[in-house]
Amino acid sequence: MSGTAEKALAALRAELPEPVLLTDPDSVARFAHDEAEWAPHGEPLAVVRATSTDDVVAAVRICAELGVPVVPRGAGTGLSGGANAIDGCVLISFEGMNEILEINPREQLAVVQPGVVNDDLRAACREQGAWYPPDPASSPWSTIGGNVATNAGGVCCVKYGVTRDYVLGMEAVVGNGEVVRLGRRTAKGVAGYDLCGLFVGSEGTLGVITEITVKLLPGLRAPERTVVGYFDSLVAAGEAVAAVAAAGIVPSALELLDQHCLKAVDEWKNMGLSAEANVLLLGRSDTPGAAGEQEVDGLLRCFDEAGATWSARSTDEHEADALFAARRLAYPALERLGPLLTEDVCVPRAKVPEMLARIEAAAQRHDTQIANIAHAGDGNLHPLIITQPGDDAARLRAQRAFDDIVADAIAMGGTVTGEHGVGLLKRKGLHAELSPAVIGMHHAVKNALDPAGIFNPGKVFGDPDS
Amino acid sequence: MSGTAEKALAALRAELPEPVLLTDPDSVARFAHDEAEWAPHGEPLAVVRATSTDDVVAAVRICAELGVPVVPRGAGTGLSGGANAIDGCVLISFEGMNEILEINPREQLAVVQPGVVNDDLRAACREQGAWYPPDPASSPWSTIGGNVATNAGGVCCVKYGVTRDYVLGMEAVVGNGEVVRLGRRTAKGVAGYDLCGLFVGSEGTLGVITEITVKLLPGLRAPERTVVGYFDSLVAAGEAVAAVAAAGIVPSALELLDQHCLKAVDEWKNMGLSAEANVLLLGRSDTPGAAGEQEVDGLLRCFDEAGATWSARSTDEHEADALFAARRLAYPALERLGPLLTEDVCVPRAKVPEMLARIEAAAQRHDTQIANIAHAGDGNLHPLIITQPGDDAARLRAQRAFDDIVADAIAMGGTVTGEHGVGLLKRKGLHAELSPAVIGMHHAVKNALDPAGIFNPGKVFGDPDS
Repeated sequence: MSGTAEKALAALRAELPEPVLLTDPDSVARFAHDEAEWAPHGEPLAVVRATSTDDVVAAVRICAELGVPVVPRGAGTGLSGGANAIDGCVLISFEGMNEILEINPREQLAVVQPGVVNDDLRAACREQGAWYPPDPASSPWSTIGGNVATNAGGVCCVKYGVTRDYVLGMEAVVGNGEVVRLGRRTAKGVAGYDLCGLFVGSEGTLGVITEITVKLLPGLRAPERTVVGYFDSLVAAGEAVAAVAAAGIVPSALELLDQHCLKAVDEWKNMGLSAEANVLLLGRSDTPGAAGEQEVDGLLRCFDEAGATWSARSTDEHEADALFAARRLAYPALERLGPLLTEDVCVPRAKVPEMLARIEAAAQRHDTQIANIAHAGDGNLHPLIITQPGDDAARLRAQRAFDDIVADAIAMGGTVTGEHGVGLLKRKGLHAELSPAVIGMHHAVKNALDPAGIFNPGKVFGDPDS
Repeated sequence: MSGTAEKALAALRAELPEPVLLTDPDSVARFAHDEAEWAPHGEPLAVVRATSTDDVVAAVRICAELGVPVVPRGAGTGLSGGANAIDGCVLISFEGMNEILEINPREQLAVVQPGVVNDDLRAACREQGAWYPPDPASSPWSTIGGNVATNAGGVCCVKYGVTRDYVLGMEAVVGNGEVVRLGRRTAKGVAGYDLCGLFVGSEGTLGVITEITVKLLPGLRAPERTVVGYFDSLVAAGEAVAAVAAAGIVPSALELLDQHCLKAVDEWKNMGLSAEANVLLLGRSDTPGAAGEQEVDGLLRCFDEAGATWSARSTDEHEADALFAARRLAYPALERLGPLLTEDVCVPRAKVPEMLARIEAAAQRHDTQIANIAHAGDGNLHPLIITQPGDDAARLRAQRAFDDIVADAIAMGGTVTGEHGVGLLKRKGLHAELSPAVIGMHHAVKNALDPAGIFNPGKVFGDPDS
């Protein structure tokens, strides 16, 4: 162990009580990575299971003084390696800071600690007659802190926007351990730079978020109508998605699952989906009254005109919920088959059919299996490249397919990451997407706000070959 | 003229053709300030009437090399002095860059030059079956570039959000004259820091925005129902506003005008409003169908329970539009009476009655006349302090009232500026609102992205006593 590491451990032990500080290698190891199975991770020096902002301040101060990397972590459901340990880092886990501090329907806001689980916040808001919309597929497990750090998207954001659209303010530990309040509690406010917004999606590289004020929508969410479409091909389903956009319909969900996903869910949960559809599109409308009926009719028309082999509005709420539960289970179901290399490209809506065709071509060209889940209505596609453990040649082919898909998305005016964040896996893509001058602006902002260089260094816009 | 100024003029003349570059003092003077009549302004060295990004690059390069301040300017309708000239600066005017480059309803976006007038963009989008919501009261005159630089709000943002919520991407000239593209054209995207969002509301202090990609909502805006309430007192009208929030109603507008505003409009346009109401609340709902009817009923109930002396839904569309036109004219009508010192505080919705009471108390305490316009549904209040030209004692009293109102707003958990920006007038308030550590983060970000220190220096978080 290096002298710095020894000093850091001694200082952490002096400041933090035993249940907060984990240093035993076996205990620490369980915090060392997120769910990006392809991303490398190092060995943390220690884990701080924070119980308060003070714990975070103590850890950050010590790390800033000694130059030890700090990596914040929510539930570890990330898919890009953003929360992966750096060798010798201090991981700050927020599992223990999971209190909802305030739900205020009148001011349309809630204040939470970072470790609050997304679904728990939504359920608590519902009890008070308010709604927190952002709903990543990981919502039963992922935390608001992680959602904010990655600017997570989700199923309803095709209509309701992403996490950024709901973050009003935050408390964060920055610099050498200063506690700051960014953002506001009012409906509007333009006093100074939007530093709160800058922290959203910064993946822990600018400081450690210790409290979050989110915007709520008043009232309970209106009931949704569900529309189901079966398609023979990915491209036909993509045409339906493009047609929905062209018709100016804004569904409250428009999700795509292909045969690989349906089979994986069937094998796990025995739902019998894959026998019926090759590609499944799930649309929803939560617009009340006649306008909602029109949206449903419009969705069905788009599905049919794009060549759906079958389409219908679901008349059974349980059936509809089961289909969306299958959507949510698709990722863990596929994970059971082998390490997944997860894409998160987002393209203009009109380009969805072409992008899906290019993904199929990449799978063929590189002789690799690619399953597709998509927040299709957003143009946000998740091709998941499946390999068998231990097959190094397959891994190489998978990486080539991954790189081709990223290049195709950028060439079509898209982005390498729609909602998962860059973490470690998409650094090369980020450097392809952004100009050197924009990368330079990232470094300048990072260096300005993190003079000690301790906050999740190397992630996001760090050297992709490091 | 200093040596630097002479060098700068020579270099500008060498790079920019005559119609682009103005240096004649009389021509230049008309660009020297915005509508914040209380804010000081200097004398610009030159005005660049940009016709292209290249013109901006040329100006910024020269200014960066010589350390000459650069002040970007839209239509000059700002109310905080953000676009006011700094002595010896180069003003970049965007009046000539007013092309709408693309309206794309399918991808729900438009691409515009900064000088496009807000209402012109909305009208052009309407023709293509799409809607650009942000509607500052200055929408017939103000430009999208200025709206973005100040993160302008407006009448419908109580339901639809502010300018920031509609800016997807931009081109900007930064640093020493590099052209960068920030943000995206896709529905979602998290590749790196939200530098685009950071530039929104940065009031020209980080670079010069030369092109903007905005998000549109698909379809035409639904027709609105209008509800009118008359009140005897500001506080009673404020109680109605708080009741609307408590009822969970989200109107598409909820505007307040007091007796001073109504009289000023009457004197100018002879509309006969002030004889009928002491304080006027204008509510709107654009929710279609029965749900919209319920909102209207709810608004009327809130008005009546708060003690409205009269309330009704407007059955005459022209009458309703005339009332909102009066709202839009209130500011210029008051400007006719004397220099206005314009507040822009925003408080939590439940605090609106108390804040209005405190504004009245400040007017009494300092023996000054304060008119109130408000985006009341947002908690965003515009007390306008009226003085007679040349009355220095009144100016002193007005400044004291201004300072008290700012302090009251901050004490109630509010902000010094909801939508106008900080500019010059609210720098003292900004320093009261933000902690020294957060001000320090502003300086760090500014220095990182503007190493030459040329972009609108001293504005927003600069020394308020300078």
